[in-house]
This record gives sequence, C-alpha cells and structure tokens, in this order.
Amino acid sequence: MDSVNIRPPRTAHRHRPTVILGIDPGLRRTGYGVVRLSPGRFEPDLVEAGLIRLDAATGVEDRLLALFNDLEELVERIGPDHIAVEKLFAHYKHPRTAILMAHARGVILLAAKRKGIALTNLPSTEVKKSLTGNGHASKEQVQRAVAGQLHLPAPPEPSDVADALAIAMCCARRTALQAASHPAPDRDRNVS
Amino acid sequence: MDSVNIRPPRTAHRHRPTVILGIDPGLRRTGYGVVRLSPGRFEPDLVEAGLIRLDAATGVEDRLLALFNDLEELVERIGPDHIAVEKLFAHYKHPRTAILMAHARGVILLAAKRKGIALTNLPSTEVKKSLTGNGHASKEQVQRAVAGQLHLPAPPEPSDVADALAIAMCCARRTALQAASHPAPDRDRNVS
Repeated sequence: MDSVNIRPPRTAHRHRPTVILGIDPGLRRTGYGVVRLSPGRFEPDLVEAGLIRLDAATGVEDRLLALFNDLEELVERIGPDHIAVEKLFAHYKHPRTAILMAHARGVILLAAKRKGIALTNLPSTEVKKSLTGNGHASKEQVQRAVAGQLHLPAPPEPSDVADALAIAMCCARRTALQAASHPAPDRDRNVS
Repeated sequence: MDSVNIRPPRTAHRHRPTVILGIDPGLRRTGYGVVRLSPGRFEPDLVEAGLIRLDAATGVEDRLLALFNDLEELVERIGPDHIAVEKLFAHYKHPRTAILMAHARGVILLAAKRKGIALTNLPSTEVKKSLTGNGHASKEQVQRAVAGQLHLPAPPEPSDVADALAIAMCCARRTALQAASHPAPDRDRNVS
C-alpha cells in the first residue's frame, strides 16, 4: 500500500465521530479516502487518503489477493463505521474496464461484509452533484471541489484518490442529512 | 450449499490423480463440478457436482460473503489441484449480468488464490468445442455431452451444474494433453 500522504493538521478529536472510508476500485490502482463526521456537523474532516497500487504485470487473481489483504489491513487500522463505493452501472461504454472493476468491487464488498461494516452504494451522479452541484461534472471539477472543501493546498492526485475522497464526503453528507431529519435522543449515537 | 447429488459409483482410487474443480459463477446460483484425472488417462471421472444457491432477496455483498464461505468450505473438503473458470469477456450483450457475474468471479479467484490453488481460465468456445466439437454449441448440446461422457443417466440440471462440469472436463483434457506432450520422469508427478 502506498499512502500519498494527505493528512490534515492534528486537531482535538470530537466525541464519537462517524468515520467513513470511500473507495474507488480498480485493478491497477484503488483509491481510498477517509473522512470523519462529527455529531451535529454537515461537513466532514479529512483523516487520510491514499492509493493501493496493484502490480499490472501479475495476474488478476494475484492483484485481487493483494487488494483484499491491503484492504483488510486498512480497515483494521482505520476502523470505519461506513464503507462507501460508487454504483458500477454507468460504465457500459467500456465493458472490459467495467468487468475488471467489478472483480475488484466484488472483493471490496466482501472485505467490508466480512468485517461487518455498513456499506453505502452511491450513484456517481449523486457524488458529483454533492461535491460540485453538477451531476455530470468533470474529473478536474471534482478534484478541485475536493481540494477546496477539505482545505487542501492542491487537488489530490491521482484522480483515483480525489474520487475516493469525493465518495466518502458524499456519504458523510448523506449521513449528516439523515441524522438531522431523524434526530436521536442520544446526541452521541452512531449514525448508521 | 445444495448438492444436487450427482456422484459416481465408488471405484478403487488410482495413485495420485489430479482433482479439478470447475466453477460457473453467478450471484443467484454458482454451479460447481469436480472431476478426477488419473495419470496416463485422457478422460476424467466424475467426483461430484452441485450448486451454491444464493438468496436473491439479500444484497450483493451478503451473497458474495455466502459464496466465499461456501467456496472455502468446498475447497477444503475437495482439495482440488486446479480450479477452472471461464473467461468472462463473451457476455457484452448483457452488461448488467456480466458485471454481476464479475463480482462473483472476483470472489472465486480470490478464494482460489488465498488457498494457493492453480487457476485455469478457459475461453467458453474452448469448453464447448472440447465437449461437443463445436465452439458455439447450445446449452442443451453441452448438457447432453456432459451426461454422455460422464455416463450419467440424465443431463445434469440446472445448466449451471452441467456448465461447471464441462469447464472441469475441458481443463482435465488440457491438463492431460500437456502431460502427454511433456512427460515427466516421475510418472506420479502432479501435473500443473
């Protein structure tokens, strides 16, 4: 696993935030982004983001095993309350790519389920709209929005990392909206 | 897991046969077929075949976990030398089905690799040709060929089971041909 070393400055931790891990699957590079949503807030904070690089010179099954092992390690370290991924039915123009991504996505869903972590599937248009206001925004627009909203000095690179952060941020906002519309008596409950 | 109870009559085991597990992936039903190839022979014998049924009322991630757990159990029980699957790039006409199958296929490849078992990817035309002489044979032709060549009283049902057996039989023949063209000094070696 190859962290690209995007971390926020240390701040005091709030009580019982919800930690969300967004994943952008791929069999060359799988991007991940982790955000934290504090109770009563709508905007998540960055925890970290990075890439799982897979060796394209090896077979698909070797890469799936490497991805699974790296993900298990990441999930153990981060302890997310949610894992968020994009729905995968928008890629019909490139069926070979979509089918390879689906192999990776299957392994990601399995890893999440084996750890008992709640999964959220987000349409890519919802992710883009949540970040930029436009459900058909370009990759560059999403990268800039992620950078601006997380107060990063530059857009995350490569775009797999920005996409994973965008997925996590969209999931955080959906979670915050659900919490606001169904407030619980216990202000510290974990939103699920 | 739901065995459809296709088993051959008990015969004396030959020394060190190669055991091949063929799998036909799906998120409703995954068929499996196990054959055994004895040293010096070209035609495999049936060991068993069956279905892993997945609950279509549950989420994709629940089904992937059930598939993974059932496969791990099957592999431990059977102890295959090879796992054979079809290549998945022939299904572009039904991209949604192909993408769901790819999720299941990813989990199958992962389960094989985690157990350190050799994987063989077979083009579906090679499987059909090996069984029927025609690379574009119908499902029914494949079912009849499987029944005839394994001396079964009737074609295996559903077709997922016949397909899994066809994949295992094709892999066994490929293995036998490779062994015949590269004979090893040790007649009992495991063909890989």
